[in-house]
Amino acid sequence: MYYVLLSGGSGKRLWPLSNEVRPKQYLKLVNPESNSMERCSMVQRVWKQMQEADLEKHTIITAGCSQEELIRSQIKDAKIALEPEARDTFPAVLLSCAYLHSILGAHKEEYAVILPVDAYTQESFFVLLPHLKEAVRSFNAQIGLIGAKPHYAASKYGYMVPLEQKQKVKLISRFVEKPDEAEAERLIRQGALWNCGVFCVQIGDILSMASEFHLTESYEDIRKNYHRLPAISFDYQVLEKADKLIALEYNGYWKDLGTWSAMAEQMSTNTQGNVLMDEHCLNTQVINELDCPIVVAGGKNLVVAASQDGILVADKNHTEGIKQLVQDFHSNPRFEERRWGTLQTLDDSSEGEHRVLTRKIKIYDGMNSSYHHHENRDELWTVLRGQADLILEGNRIRLLPGKVICIRRGQRHAVKALEEFEYIETHVGSSGGNEDIHRITFKWDEISLSQIL
Amino acid sequence: MYYVLLSGGSGKRLWPLSNEVRPKQYLKLVNPESNSMERCSMVQRVWKQMQEADLEKHTIITAGCSQEELIRSQIKDAKIALEPEARDTFPAVLLSCAYLHSILGAHKEEYAVILPVDAYTQESFFVLLPHLKEAVRSFNAQIGLIGAKPHYAASKYGYMVPLEQKQKVKLISRFVEKPDEAEAERLIRQGALWNCGVFCVQIGDILSMASEFHLTESYEDIRKNYHRLPAISFDYQVLEKADKLIALEYNGYWKDLGTWSAMAEQMSTNTQGNVLMDEHCLNTQVINELDCPIVVAGGKNLVVAASQDGILVADKNHTEGIKQLVQDFHSNPRFEERRWGTLQTLDDSSEGEHRVLTRKIKIYDGMNSSYHHHENRDELWTVLRGQADLILEGNRIRLLPGKVICIRRGQRHAVKALEEFEYIETHVGSSGGNEDIHRITFKWDEISLSQIL
Repeated sequence: MYYVLLSGGSGKRLWPLSNEVRPKQYLKLVNPESNSMERCSMVQRVWKQMQEADLEKHTIITAGCSQEELIRSQIKDAKIALEPEARDTFPAVLLSCAYLHSILGAHKEEYAVILPVDAYTQESFFVLLPHLKEAVRSFNAQIGLIGAKPHYAASKYGYMVPLEQKQKVKLISRFVEKPDEAEAERLIRQGALWNCGVFCVQIGDILSMASEFHLTESYEDIRKNYHRLPAISFDYQVLEKADKLIALEYNGYWKDLGTWSAMAEQMSTNTQGNVLMDEHCLNTQVINELDCPIVVAGGKNLVVAASQDGILVADKNHTEGIKQLVQDFHSNPRFEERRWGTLQTLDDSSEGEHRVLTRKIKIYDGMNSSYHHHENRDELWTVLRGQADLILEGNRIRLLPGKVICIRRGQRHAVKALEEFEYIETHVGSSGGNEDIHRITFKWDEISLSQIL
Repeated sequence: MYYVLLSGGSGKRLWPLSNEVRPKQYLKLVNPESNSMERCSMVQRVWKQMQEADLEKHTIITAGCSQEELIRSQIKDAKIALEPEARDTFPAVLLSCAYLHSILGAHKEEYAVILPVDAYTQESFFVLLPHLKEAVRSFNAQIGLIGAKPHYAASKYGYMVPLEQKQKVKLISRFVEKPDEAEAERLIRQGALWNCGVFCVQIGDILSMASEFHLTESYEDIRKNYHRLPAISFDYQVLEKADKLIALEYNGYWKDLGTWSAMAEQMSTNTQGNVLMDEHCLNTQVINELDCPIVVAGGKNLVVAASQDGILVADKNHTEGIKQLVQDFHSNPRFEERRWGTLQTLDDSSEGEHRVLTRKIKIYDGMNSSYHHHENRDELWTVLRGQADLILEGNRIRLLPGKVICIRRGQRHAVKALEEFEYIETHVGSSGGNEDIHRITFKWDEISLSQIL
C-alpha cells in the first residue's frame, strides 16, 4: 500500500503570500496539531499526520519541479515525483504511479492512495486510509474514495451520493459539484458525503492508461514526454468513466483550505507578525511578513495579508475572487526561499533595458552557490553579516562585514558561507535576478577548494 | 496687514503617511482647485489660495525647524518663522508676531491674521480675511475670528455663539467645544458658527505679552529662549481671557482635515498609487506609496494607506483613535524628503550596538551634501543612476552607475549631483542614519571646488 501527496499547483488564491515560487501549500500558516501554537505549512501538517498514522515510509510527494527545493527544506528525506510542468491531476497521478513502480519497485497489483494536501483534517482521517484497499478489493471496485460527513449545507464543496445509506462501505451512484444550499440540504438528507478528493487505485490499472498516449509505463519516459499527456483532471479522465466506485465515510473535521476566508479561520492566532488591532476589530485575521507594522482600526470580518509581493485587504465574503483579481500580476516574486538560503528584492530601479536590481541575500551556514559568471551585468556586493569565502576568477577572498566587492561581467565566482552570511547585491547591466547565470560544471562538495583554483 | 500660516505639529493622525519628518500638512493628497486632478499638500493648497486672493506677499509660514527643508521644497521663496521646538500655539503666535516685527519690519499697530493650514475651504474664505482688521477696529475688539456657517450638527468641531444673530459682524458670547449632536443642533438654532481657528490680532498687543515671560520682543531673543515659554494653546492663554471678540461669518465649504476619514473624502480619486479594487468595494479610499500592489476585495467604508513606515486599514468610523494607537511607534521614518533629494531605508539588519543600515538616496540635479565625516561607521556606496562628483579626502572621484565606493570612518567626503543621482548606501559600524555626521564648515556654493581641495 502506497500513498501519494499531490502537492502541485502554483495557486494565487492566497495572494500575496502564495506565488509561483511559494504555492499556498508551503505557507507556514497552520498549526501541526490542534493544541499547538507552532506554525507549519499544509504539506508539513499532512506529512506529520501521515507520520503519526505510521504511513510516511510508503508515501511520496508529487509536485512541480520548481517546488523541489521548497519541499526538501520543509520535509527531510521526502521522496518526490517531479512534474516537468503543471498539467492538471490526471498526468500527475499517472506520473506518481510510474514513480512508485519504476523507482520504488511497487508491484502493479499494489494499491496507491492519492490525496490532496490542502485539506485540514483530524487524525481519524488518516486512520481510515489503509482500509481503502480492502474495501475496494472486497467490492471489486475500480476506485475507492473518502467521503466526509457534511457539517453543514456547504455550497462550495462537491458531494457524492451513495446508493444506500446504511452500509459502512458505500457504493457511489453520482457526484454533484457545488450545489446551492437548498440542494445541498436535500443531498445531505439522502446521505450524500463531501468528496475529499482522495482516490485509492490499483497501480497497474493507472499505468495501463499510458499506452493510450503512446507512452511506456516507465517514470523516465512519462517525465520526458509529459507534454504529450492531456492537461486534464483525474476526475474527468478516470473517475467519471469508472464502473464501480466505493467510498468510506469519514466522520470528523474536514475543511478545504482553498480560500483566504477558510485559511484565516484555521490560523491558531488572529495575527502573525508586526500587527496592531484596536478593540473595535471583530473576526479579523492579519498576517504581516513585512518589517513595518500593520495597524487595523475597526476592521470587521476582514483578512489582511502583506508580503514583499503586495498587500491584500479582503472582506471574508469576497475572498473567492482573489485568484481572478491578481491573475495578471506577473512581477517577479520579491522574496524567494531556497534550499541554501533566501533572496529578497529590496529595490528595482531598472529603466527599460537597463537593469538595476538590489537584493539582500542570506546563505545558510555551510551552504554555497555554484561557480558561475554573468555575461550582461556587473554585481556589486556589500557584506552585512557573517563570514564567507568568495572564489573570484580562481582567487579566494574572505568576506567579512563591511567588505565591498565588484564582480564584473564575465568574472567567474562562487561563494560559500562559513557561518550564516548576509550581503546586499546590486546588479547593473542588461540582465538581473535569476537570469543570465552561466554555471561552470563542478560542485563545491565534489571537489576541494584547491582543485577549483 | 500680515498673514501667518501656522504649520507646526508633527501629527500622527494620518499615520503611516504622516510622521515626524513629514507631518500631515505636507502630504500631497488634496487637489489645488476643486476641478483639478493634480495633487498637492495642504500647505501648498492654502498657499495657492493665498496667492489667488493676492495675500501671499505679506504671508509667512511658522513651523518646526525640522520642517524647513520640506517647506522650501514645496513653496519657493517662503518666509519661515522657525520654532526651535514644538510648544503649542501660544508660543508659535508670539514667535510669528516677533518675526513680522523684527524681520519684516511690521509696525506694532499693524494687524496679523493667524490661520491653520489643515482646513479645506473655498476661495471666498480668503476674500474674507482682509476684512477682519476693519471689523476688529470698528468694534474696538481685541481679537477677530472667522466662523463658518455649519453644514450639519457636527460633534467634532468647536462652536462660537454670537450675542445677536442678525449682525454682519458678530460679537461672540461664548465657545462650546465638541458638543453632542443634540446640543449642536440647539447651538445652530441660536446662530452658532464653527470656529475656523483663525485669529486677527494687533501685532503689538501680542508682543507685549513677551515681558510676562521676561523676554524682549525680538525674534532672536524669543527663539533663543523659546523653551521658557509655556507649552500652552493660544485659545487658553489669550482667547479665553480676551475682553471683546468679534467674528465674521463665512458661508461656504469648510472642513477640518484632521482625521483619515475627513482626508479620504477630500481626495480627488479613490485610489492613489498601485491599487486594485474589486467591484464590491464601496466608499473606500486607498493610498499606496509602495511599489508593490494593494488589492482590496469587498472593502466597505474603509481607508487603506501604506508607506515605508507601515500599513493602515481603518473603518472610517474608527479613524479618530489612530493617533493614540500609533503613539508608541518610535521607529525612524523609512522615507524622508529633503530640499536636496530623498532618503529611503531599504533594510535595517542592525543587531544591538552593531548597526547595519541600507538606504537608497536620491540627490536632485545640482544639489550637494555638506563636506563631513563619520566617526563610528563605514559607508559603502553603489551607484545606481546618474552622475556625481565625490570629494573624498580632497580627491575628486567621478561617480557613474556600477561604481562601488568605500568611505571608511574618519574620511571626509561630500557629493554633488551633476544630474539626478541615485545610489545605495550601507552603513556598517556603531552609528547609522542621520546621526554621527560631523560637518566641516564650508559650503559648496560659497567656495570653488579647487579651494576645497
